[in-house]
Amino acid sequence: MADYIWGRYPVLEALRSRRRVHRILVAQGPQDVALSRVLDEASRKGIPVERVNRRQLDDISNGGNHQGVVAVTAPRTYAELDDILKRASDRGEDALIIVLDAIQDVQNLGSLIRTAEAIGAHGVVIPEHRAAGLTPTVDKTSAGAVEFIPVARVTNITRALEDLKREGIWCIGLDGDAKTRFDQAKLTGPIALVVGNEGKGISRLVREHCDLLVRLPMRGHVGSLNAAVAGSVALYEIWRQRGWAVSEGDE
Amino acid sequence: MADYIWGRYPVLEALRSRRRVHRILVAQGPQDVALSRVLDEASRKGIPVERVNRRQLDDISNGGNHQGVVAVTAPRTYAELDDILKRASDRGEDALIIVLDAIQDVQNLGSLIRTAEAIGAHGVVIPEHRAAGLTPTVDKTSAGAVEFIPVARVTNITRALEDLKREGIWCIGLDGDAKTRFDQAKLTGPIALVVGNEGKGISRLVREHCDLLVRLPMRGHVGSLNAAVAGSVALYEIWRQRGWAVSEGDE
Repeated sequence: MADYIWGRYPVLEALRSRRRVHRILVAQGPQDVALSRVLDEASRKGIPVERVNRRQLDDISNGGNHQGVVAVTAPRTYAELDDILKRASDRGEDALIIVLDAIQDVQNLGSLIRTAEAIGAHGVVIPEHRAAGLTPTVDKTSAGAVEFIPVARVTNITRALEDLKREGIWCIGLDGDAKTRFDQAKLTGPIALVVGNEGKGISRLVREHCDLLVRLPMRGHVGSLNAAVAGSVALYEIWRQRGWAVSEGDE
Repeated sequence: MADYIWGRYPVLEALRSRRRVHRILVAQGPQDVALSRVLDEASRKGIPVERVNRRQLDDISNGGNHQGVVAVTAPRTYAELDDILKRASDRGEDALIIVLDAIQDVQNLGSLIRTAEAIGAHGVVIPEHRAAGLTPTVDKTSAGAVEFIPVARVTNITRALEDLKREGIWCIGLDGDAKTRFDQAKLTGPIALVVGNEGKGISRLVREHCDLLVRLPMRGHVGSLNAAVAGSVALYEIWRQRGWAVSEGDE
């Protein structure tokens, strides 16, 4: 069993991450600077490079924009909820976790993982069923961020919220009908931010398990935002209320 | 010449907007509540409804998720920069315009238009060449928002910025290398927010035409956000600094 990651930037990120890369497949033909950086990194890590027909890369990436390079990697493994909690305590930080209640679109999943990693959240929780999982496309749509942040897959989101609450984590759901505006809520302390499905928002059961619901203000005709946008705006507000704490580049 | 809009929500939004809808195509077969709302709206507006084979809708939408309904509309017309400025002055508000320097992805373009409309920005400016335009897919990825906010297409972004500056509008570019953090900049008064291309950010020439560059703070490994996310986070910060002014639902 192997996974494939394609595109120069995602492959480069995979090579720089802790993930095991078996080998690199490169399209025959001329080679530019960006591709050389990938090959240099592979050579530094002692990872074999194989020249293949460009068509083969088209097949592997299912017609995706592979930019002439594919990494063959160990299959993606999911983290446990405990790994995420440990990461927060190892850093001596209040936990910041993003819980995705049935995000369907891999581009939204990738964008949310990318924002979560960029602001230094400790992990992402997704459901096992009826939701997008960590496909190779998510490697690309997350711009490689998925390599650097643990993603836990749970059978039941409400049970996960109960577990988090037992650890003293405040569960805050994004809900367009909430009374409290997100910037008026106190978003400090350990937090799990719950973001709902693209069409339906967070489900009734999950909503009932949240400690607080907040909404993003709107004044146009369209009554909701893209799910990745909404979650990201809320994550930045949480980080803002924390005073942008922790040095940049910290791991 | 006609455009097609598919999916229940986008079609419903098109029917409620000022855009001319020639007719509605509906797949033969059973009809649920969501579809009934579309047909009720069409009947209220006196727009003819035609029952067609589901395959025909598959063809029109190019395999997209049409949910059994397509609207045949007048082709999309672009606004002028003056229309956007007039919209701000008609409302008696400081202009808030989002300028997209070569956004390639229709999902990002749609998400940005959706956020801009949701927070009550006055318009969106896109370049004519080397960028995504208002395809029917953008109707869908913007959740119909594109019907309610003017989008101007200009031949030259730097010239458009010069025009905006002459009108007293402050041009602020999002740039990962900027010295100023976005929340530390004064983002009140008339503003054009400039968001760059997904891979390359804003181009050198466009950057040089900005009055100020700001960055979103980051502390992870991945050095950038999805373009739609970055632009949306900045738009919310601008609106926050304006004190969430103007009543919700205002047009």
